[in-house]
Amino acid sequence: MMLMPMDTPLPDPSANALDVGYEMYALVEQLFPICRSITGPGVRETLAILQELVPLEIREVPTGTQVFDWVVPREWQIRDAYIQAPDGQRVVDFQESNLHVVSYSTPVRARMKWKDLQPHLHTLPDEPDRVPYRTSYYQETWGFCLSQCQWITMKRMYGEEAEYEVCIDSTLAPGSLTYGELYLPGSTTDEVVISCHVCHPSLANDNLSGIAVATHLARHVAALPERRYSYRFLFIPGTIGAITWLAQNEANLGRIRHGLVLSLLGIPARTHYKRSRRGDAEIDRAVAHVLKNSGAEFALLDFEPYGYDERQYCSPGLNLPFGCLSRTPYGRYSQYHTSADNLDLVHPEALAGSLAHCATIVEVLEGNGAFVNQKPKCEPQLGRRGLYSAIGGGQEKRNTELALLWVLNQSDGQHTLLDIAERSGLAFKDIRRAADLLLSHQLLTEV
Amino acid sequence: MMLMPMDTPLPDPSANALDVGYEMYALVEQLFPICRSITGPGVRETLAILQELVPLEIREVPTGTQVFDWVVPREWQIRDAYIQAPDGQRVVDFQESNLHVVSYSTPVRARMKWKDLQPHLHTLPDEPDRVPYRTSYYQETWGFCLSQCQWITMKRMYGEEAEYEVCIDSTLAPGSLTYGELYLPGSTTDEVVISCHVCHPSLANDNLSGIAVATHLARHVAALPERRYSYRFLFIPGTIGAITWLAQNEANLGRIRHGLVLSLLGIPARTHYKRSRRGDAEIDRAVAHVLKNSGAEFALLDFEPYGYDERQYCSPGLNLPFGCLSRTPYGRYSQYHTSADNLDLVHPEALAGSLAHCATIVEVLEGNGAFVNQKPKCEPQLGRRGLYSAIGGGQEKRNTELALLWVLNQSDGQHTLLDIAERSGLAFKDIRRAADLLLSHQLLTEV
Amino acid sequence: MMLMPMDTPLPDPSANALDVGYEMYALVEQLFPICRSITGPGVRETLAILQELVPLEIREVPTGTQVFDWVVPREWQIRDAYIQAPDGQRVVDFQESNLHVVSYSTPVRARMKWKDLQPHLHTLPDEPDRVPYRTSYYQETWGFCLSQCQWITMKRMYGEEAEYEVCIDSTLAPGSLTYGELYLPGSTTDEVVISCHVCHPSLANDNLSGIAVATHLARHVAALPERRYSYRFLFIPGTIGAITWLAQNEANLGRIRHGLVLSLLGIPARTHYKRSRRGDAEIDRAVAHVLKNSGAEFALLDFEPYGYDERQYCSPGLNLPFGCLSRTPYGRYSQYHTSADNLDLVHPEALAGSLAHCATIVEVLEGNGAFVNQKPKCEPQLGRRGLYSAIGGGQEKRNTELALLWVLNQSDGQHTLLDIAERSGLAFKDIRRAADLLLSHQLLTEV
Repeated sequence: MMLMPMDTPLPDPSANALDVGYEMYALVEQLFPICRSITGPGVRETLAILQELVPLEIREVPTGTQVFDWVVPREWQIRDAYIQAPDGQRVVDFQESNLHVVSYSTPVRARMKWKDLQPHLHTLPDEPDRVPYRTSYYQETWGFCLSQCQWITMKRMYGEEAEYEVCIDSTLAPGSLTYGELYLPGSTTDEVVISCHVCHPSLANDNLSGIAVATHLARHVAALPERRYSYRFLFIPGTIGAITWLAQNEANLGRIRHGLVLSLLGIPARTHYKRSRRGDAEIDRAVAHVLKNSGAEFALLDFEPYGYDERQYCSPGLNLPFGCLSRTPYGRYSQYHTSADNLDLVHPEALAGSLAHCATIVEVLEGNGAFVNQKPKCEPQLGRRGLYSAIGGGQEKRNTELALLWVLNQSDGQHTLLDIAERSGLAFKDIRRAADLLLSHQLLTEV
Repeated sequence: MMLMPMDTPLPDPSANALDVGYEMYALVEQLFPICRSITGPGVRETLAILQELVPLEIREVPTGTQVFDWVVPREWQIRDAYIQAPDGQRVVDFQESNLHVVSYSTPVRARMKWKDLQPHLHTLPDEPDRVPYRTSYYQETWGFCLSQCQWITMKRMYGEEAEYEVCIDSTLAPGSLTYGELYLPGSTTDEVVISCHVCHPSLANDNLSGIAVATHLARHVAALPERRYSYRFLFIPGTIGAITWLAQNEANLGRIRHGLVLSLLGIPARTHYKRSRRGDAEIDRAVAHVLKNSGAEFALLDFEPYGYDERQYCSPGLNLPFGCLSRTPYGRYSQYHTSADNLDLVHPEALAGSLAHCATIVEVLEGNGAFVNQKPKCEPQLGRRGLYSAIGGGQEKRNTELALLWVLNQSDGQHTLLDIAERSGLAFKDIRRAADLLLSHQLLTEV
Repeated sequence: MMLMPMDTPLPDPSANALDVGYEMYALVEQLFPICRSITGPGVRETLAILQELVPLEIREVPTGTQVFDWVVPREWQIRDAYIQAPDGQRVVDFQESNLHVVSYSTPVRARMKWKDLQPHLHTLPDEPDRVPYRTSYYQETWGFCLSQCQWITMKRMYGEEAEYEVCIDSTLAPGSLTYGELYLPGSTTDEVVISCHVCHPSLANDNLSGIAVATHLARHVAALPERRYSYRFLFIPGTIGAITWLAQNEANLGRIRHGLVLSLLGIPARTHYKRSRRGDAEIDRAVAHVLKNSGAEFALLDFEPYGYDERQYCSPGLNLPFGCLSRTPYGRYSQYHTSADNLDLVHPEALAGSLAHCATIVEVLEGNGAFVNQKPKCEPQLGRRGLYSAIGGGQEKRNTELALLWVLNQSDGQHTLLDIAERSGLAFKDIRRAADLLLSHQLLTEV
């Protein structure tokens, strides 16, 4: 496995990128055993661990709160769940893996025949060793997830007439929906929002990887010497969490300039970026530029209205400029939503590479802008200002000189530095450096 | 030969698609022997046969009528024509094939030497067995068409000094131009026009195939339980017929929303659609969508100002949204305008497939529209309404759910269902079904 | 080497294209020995030779004149320059090649050790036989250019302790910047500007080739029977010459409709056209059309703000529609800016082909225009006017008829003849000929 290239130094110069990758991996390991759902103690426990790294504020929104077309659901607590065979053996056991119980299962305690138990058992016949991850948030039911092998073994060992003791020791009761929010003010109230879902139980890539990268990106942004934008990091349950946050913050959504959903960032596969519904938002172009210049493989995907919380951010009545950064995208890796999405699947190098991409995206967003050339008729004489090599005639222009010429030529107030980077094929940082040089010689002014 | 896929059930549920293909083929057979031209009894006889299937109205426009830059020509009647050799044998004989006489030949009865006859003989040296189809509508002359083999035989058998008896028993006299028109009113006066040329003599693909498909499409549309659009079917002589109809109906052309020229639809080759002059009219996008989703091979062609009557419909002063649907396009099959364009060339399966495409195009035009999501901020809760699967976490979304999400996400009043079908990659009928479901739950309103 | 196709007859019908190619080559030969720079007697001598072929006016702009952000520099004169070894041998000698002295070298006469001489010696280690071309226009210094072989020989023969006699007999003093200008008035004051740089010393392709083609293009344009546009040919020193001309003619720049920089046109490589900053100016589309229809290989390049004087013409405050026509583009051939850019590199056939492209470009610019079909509803009856073949039904339309139909169909005042040529895939001259035919039948009027 190769280390992904790091475009941007991480905040603490003594910690190199891979060290941070291992820190992120350790966080994934620490969070893995917790049984998260869209509400309940698992999310609270998770956010409490993140608070040791970043000063998250924890929000609680009461059950029953109307949020657009939805209502905050009752809170789910799960203590234990099992299926006990006639010989007393617990053949399916929540204590072994929290995937074994369908999330939001109603409580049950009963003795049941095999045939009555069947409708409540979920398996993956094509992946017989894996336990699926299933939920039933909005329809009251209960169920167990188990591997096809477990299912076959039960049937063979105890036969179709056996009676099982079934227990789900859960509570569904008024409480609240919990999420974490971190606001890092910048020199303007224009906002960049980073969002990740925190509602999945023991699945490593989906989305402990996103949580880890978002947390360390927050540390990176917090350590920046200055910020043009304010940054808001949201650690929220999928769908209902995003809807709740959007409904409760509707009045301030106009401040959001750029948004990014982080998910599935731990597999060392090529990075995918799914564009916003707008398709050509600045975030879409910034991420595309960063990925193109990263040297790593990547793919750009058009928006589609399924996936993660970009579904909500990009609903037609909001149409916010949110894209989604993933490695293997939503539903496109074989371990997705199964017990095989475990700690072996996630690699420190992949986490480090993802964080590097995010840091460079922030760098582009912070550095972008449009300028006006103050000597727009013909080229200004750069040589006189020490900006151009004295001896002419050599064949190779240095990137610095090319970047100066590109910025001067395109700076008519209509083209941003990102436009210029894209048109010239030069890296954004070279273009930004050239703009800074020209600004310092009064050859540019900002629009 | 494979049956082309049928996307749409044909009107009579007891008749399957291929049965209708054989009905269309039988119609082609029945019409084949008739000597049609741009005027005269052949067109009238043809339209009378069509009236047995659809309630066509027959229009007669008198010779001399000014129609834009043109004048309705004299009516041509042909009774007999032959070249008789010195030994009394009719070596070229109209009774054998009406292709043997140049259409609109003036009458002639003379004895002529071989060398004087030559300028009036048309052959295809590169296709020595085929008789060409030639016309001289607008310049008074006469001529015979024969195979290169016939020509060589004549020359060898009778020598260059032989004298032939030449007879064309025709009349060119004031009369009228005849065409057929069928108007099927819908709930609005917005019109869809289907046009096909009826002026070619014994050529099967060009255009008895188009006539047969248009006739049976008319039967299909007439049988639809409801129609948003009114439909007008035109069975007209090429060029002068279209010009005549357009000139006489100029005041009402503004009603035309979509138009389609049907031609050359009988060869089991891949379907070609030639776009309208506008290039992005709704008919262009509807046909492209139908062909893409048909599973059959197809090609899209840009507009060019030659071909069939789209030349007239798409002239710059009218610029109507007419495309042309063909299998092998204008002039691009070797039998084009020769005696080889005969009944062997046309296949019931190809006719049936072409009709199916047309019926699906009508379905898309009828079903298209733009809507507004009534819960545009975040997604509405589909599960509560029974529109979403209760158990979450499974990897595969059903097309139904995807279609619902696409329609909701894109329905901001700016995107039609056809836009959404194209963007999503889903079939129009799935998108339309989703819109109907959402309409029934008050989640959409029509623009 | 193949002769490039000539699309346009050259003015004197007795002189065929290749003859003119040899004339251009002879001009390159004649100009080759002269030591040109951005100012000084070399430019004057060059322009005097061109005056024998075209009635150039010579302009002199005094040293110290402010031209936008620049100042016209002092005039440079060079009489002799050499490095003399201890044994009296001139190991580097301006009399052998004017490339040996860095252009604009300040005068020097000194005895120097090898190590002190080093910073003033320029070589090409990777191309050891070639002498580089170097300049120092805007920073006072002096230097010699020599081959790496010469450098090694000096070092081996005389050792590191040898003392050399160094002489540059030059003057840098107030004087003027010289350029040539030829104005050929047309029926309007709308201008086409052809610009080439005349500041390089003994380099054949860069840019004696451009000078030769521009000169003979001027002769061709002067001989045209009529001209819609006025033509201005500029023979100017690179960068400072263009800036000077633009600064002194700023008030009249609004007259410029199309501009073309000619450079590097002598190598028999495929032609490159670099688009203007606008990217879709008429000159960009005209050149692309000419190259596509030339039958020769070519490539189109997007604008970039380095290269030749298009840098100045396309600066953001002017944004004039100038492209650059070259064979091998700026800096992209191995002999670029070295002594290997000599007379062997340039071929009469390549010059002839380049001139032919330029003449055809002029033909397109002159002939382009937008028209309105006077019979825009349906097609006019071309047959009646003798514009359409009398006998119909044949499969192949002649290009003439296709061109007529295309011009009629697209002439709604929105599409130029060049648009129509591009859309139809027909050559511009066929489209123009069709338009002329339609004009003569009152079927078109000019917008």
